[in-house]
Amino acid sequence: MSEQFSDLIQEVVNADDPIDQESLSHKIAVQDVIDIALLLESLPLEQRLSIWHTLPRHKRLEVLVEMRGDPREVLLEATSDEDLDELFNDIDAETLLELSDSMSSKLIDKAVDAMDKKQQLHFAGANQYSEEQIGHWGNRDNLILPLTAKVSDAKRFLRREVPTYTDCIYLVNRAGQFSEAVKLFKIYSTPDHTPLVDLAEEDISAIKASEECASAALTVQRSGYTSLPLVDDEYRFLGRVDIGAASELMNEFYERQLMAGAGMDEDEDLFSPVRKSARNRALWLGINLLTAFLASWFIGLFEVTLQQVVALAVLMPVVASMGGIAGSQTLTLIIRGLALGQVTSANLKALMIKELKVGGLNGVIWAIVIATVASFWFESAMLGIVIGIAILINICAAALAGVGVPVMLDKLKLDPALSGSVVLTTVTDIVGFVAFLGLGSIFLV
Amino acid sequence: MSEQFSDLIQEVVNADDPIDQESLSHKIAVQDVIDIALLLESLPLEQRLSIWHTLPRHKRLEVLVEMRGDPREVLLEATSDEDLDELFNDIDAETLLELSDSMSSKLIDKAVDAMDKKQQLHFAGANQYSEEQIGHWGNRDNLILPLTAKVSDAKRFLRREVPTYTDCIYLVNRAGQFSEAVKLFKIYSTPDHTPLVDLAEEDISAIKASEECASAALTVQRSGYTSLPLVDDEYRFLGRVDIGAASELMNEFYERQLMAGAGMDEDEDLFSPVRKSARNRALWLGINLLTAFLASWFIGLFEVTLQQVVALAVLMPVVASMGGIAGSQTLTLIIRGLALGQVTSANLKALMIKELKVGGLNGVIWAIVIATVASFWFESAMLGIVIGIAILINICAAALAGVGVPVMLDKLKLDPALSGSVVLTTVTDIVGFVAFLGLGSIFLV
Repeated sequence: MSEQFSDLIQEVVNADDPIDQESLSHKIAVQDVIDIALLLESLPLEQRLSIWHTLPRHKRLEVLVEMRGDPREVLLEATSDEDLDELFNDIDAETLLELSDSMSSKLIDKAVDAMDKKQQLHFAGANQYSEEQIGHWGNRDNLILPLTAKVSDAKRFLRREVPTYTDCIYLVNRAGQFSEAVKLFKIYSTPDHTPLVDLAEEDISAIKASEECASAALTVQRSGYTSLPLVDDEYRFLGRVDIGAASELMNEFYERQLMAGAGMDEDEDLFSPVRKSARNRALWLGINLLTAFLASWFIGLFEVTLQQVVALAVLMPVVASMGGIAGSQTLTLIIRGLALGQVTSANLKALMIKELKVGGLNGVIWAIVIATVASFWFESAMLGIVIGIAILINICAAALAGVGVPVMLDKLKLDPALSGSVVLTTVTDIVGFVAFLGLGSIFLV
Repeated sequence: MSEQFSDLIQEVVNADDPIDQESLSHKIAVQDVIDIALLLESLPLEQRLSIWHTLPRHKRLEVLVEMRGDPREVLLEATSDEDLDELFNDIDAETLLELSDSMSSKLIDKAVDAMDKKQQLHFAGANQYSEEQIGHWGNRDNLILPLTAKVSDAKRFLRREVPTYTDCIYLVNRAGQFSEAVKLFKIYSTPDHTPLVDLAEEDISAIKASEECASAALTVQRSGYTSLPLVDDEYRFLGRVDIGAASELMNEFYERQLMAGAGMDEDEDLFSPVRKSARNRALWLGINLLTAFLASWFIGLFEVTLQQVVALAVLMPVVASMGGIAGSQTLTLIIRGLALGQVTSANLKALMIKELKVGGLNGVIWAIVIATVASFWFESAMLGIVIGIAILINICAAALAGVGVPVMLDKLKLDPALSGSVVLTTVTDIVGFVAFLGLGSIFLV
């Protein structure tokens, strides 16, 4: 973040003698846990571990919570069993939920056993929902009063410290179902005997625990409230989704999309061990290799033509690249639309037509430019015409695939942000090569 | 978002006769403004305009605020001067700041003239900072009391309705500089005569108005407070940055990064007019065309070789594609690290070495796989060796470029999320083609 932060990385990387290191670990220990987490993620493995071991014990758990999955795992793997036992000894349910991905099931069981009843219930309740559901991440703050309660009851209830991101308390009926929300500042400024129901908010709605994380998080961010009540399918009050958790979930959602474009996930570590990192990325390279070989196979069909007209080989990348770029523009737009729920079967046809028109217009313009360049370069008007037509065909195909591929993947419950570009590039490569070499074999040989 | 939402799009797209349309516009008018904004963005131009004209006037301004830049402009362009005057007649400063990008300067002047003094000051104050600075987007809520104030003063001050996302009031010294923050719930539960300073928070820090938006927004999201005080360079209190605004800014930041990967911006309209859309995208296609021609020119250097060994032409895309994919993985990781401030000159060398090792490992593995396939396919062990070495060279070059290119662009104050992939692909294409065809011309001819 700040220059100070960059200086700190520099200092750690350069620290050699033990005196340096001691004053340094003091300096790091007083930082905010979020900054320590960011710092650890930014350090090469050796330094990361040495700083980790000098961190004050009481800060370690909080630092782990703030870290991404992969760099956190590196630290946990380097921590002795004894230290781990101590670390997780009085962990609360919320922290355990954040960390359990990086913990062995034995360690999780141990931590759960050490919890009090209330925390155990929270942990078990959250685990009734998958990590993709908001119920897994909501807190279990019990800010509830019965529907019949008065302002005086609320004032008594609020004498203790309220949790962060609290702006309302919630009224539940006898079945424990969420019914109304009352803003705190209204309670403080209203006479004691007033029924709380009289102060209820009009426009607040609850979040269903089974709802998908990102959509629930966005609802909280946009509600104007600092938290919304979390309910089960029977509308029974479970806890709250606060805007702090919602913001974290949204940031993670976007980070996942950004990393997915390169076949990685949001937990990827800047300094993961080389083997692990190579393994993580190998699958993606392998998938892409298959599609590249497929494209090559199609090129291979035109070996004879290529031998006769070598200019075709020289210009092949231009045709493929223009299709790929045009397609990725449409793809990116549609992926965002799908994520926002704005692309549906209702407007799909209209979208296809619009993108085809945009592709057609750009296709014609760039076909003319490329045809002209190619004609002069290789002194062949016919080559110009062939590449021009191939470009037009490929850009139009890219527009259709740019809409069709992500929508199809979404229907198949595959993440278009992850696999969209691979499939799209395969289409534009093959269409481009076949159109260009095919036309070439007809008109240039 | 919801199924209901998708049904609504369907209904609008299918609505034909006037009765349909009337009941439909009633149904839309009662929706939340955010949902109306999303709906309008999801509609083809014709339907978007017809729904826009049926919206109740008092909702129009709020709907515009929630929309993205490009679709909003389409609506404003289709609104008569008279209606625009009415629309912007009693706009407040915060709304005007959101919309001014889509308004003519004449219209902005008119709106400012119609404002009261306080709103005019807010507007002028915000415009002292650029759109990239948080000072432009902070609110100007004046939740301040003098440092000497008591709890009783605060209680009197809080009798009015507090703005959304308020959890503290702020104490300023005589020079108007931010000094302390006091949580509201502490005020309510403390005797009247207590000095407010006694209740001050220990760990709150102010946001400098000149700070870059995303970094300030992240600080607010992570602070645990629902807003942080906004100050100028002399630490004078200006207003607040609340977590609602911070979340919007972060979401926009991520959306910009996602769209930048395809050379577009976050304002891009799902249904923009064809010409506008084609124009927006043409530049990106043009830049990529230049790099594709550059790659072709390098291939052209080996025309003679290609004619003699046509297998080289067939396999060229494999070499280029493997480099491009490996490079984009490193690039994506580094771009995220730069955005989080985790990649600095201090750890650059260590990152290069790590990525080179990962690239080397994956390079060797895939070189062997590809060499084997190529040897059998074209029945030439030498061709296998040539492509294997080229793959290894290109994946290692991709690792270095994947770290070096975004860092260099960042130093040049260019957005690596926007131009990183173009530059990187150019490098991997050229290195790949030259290595493969160069080795081929030596060993296969």
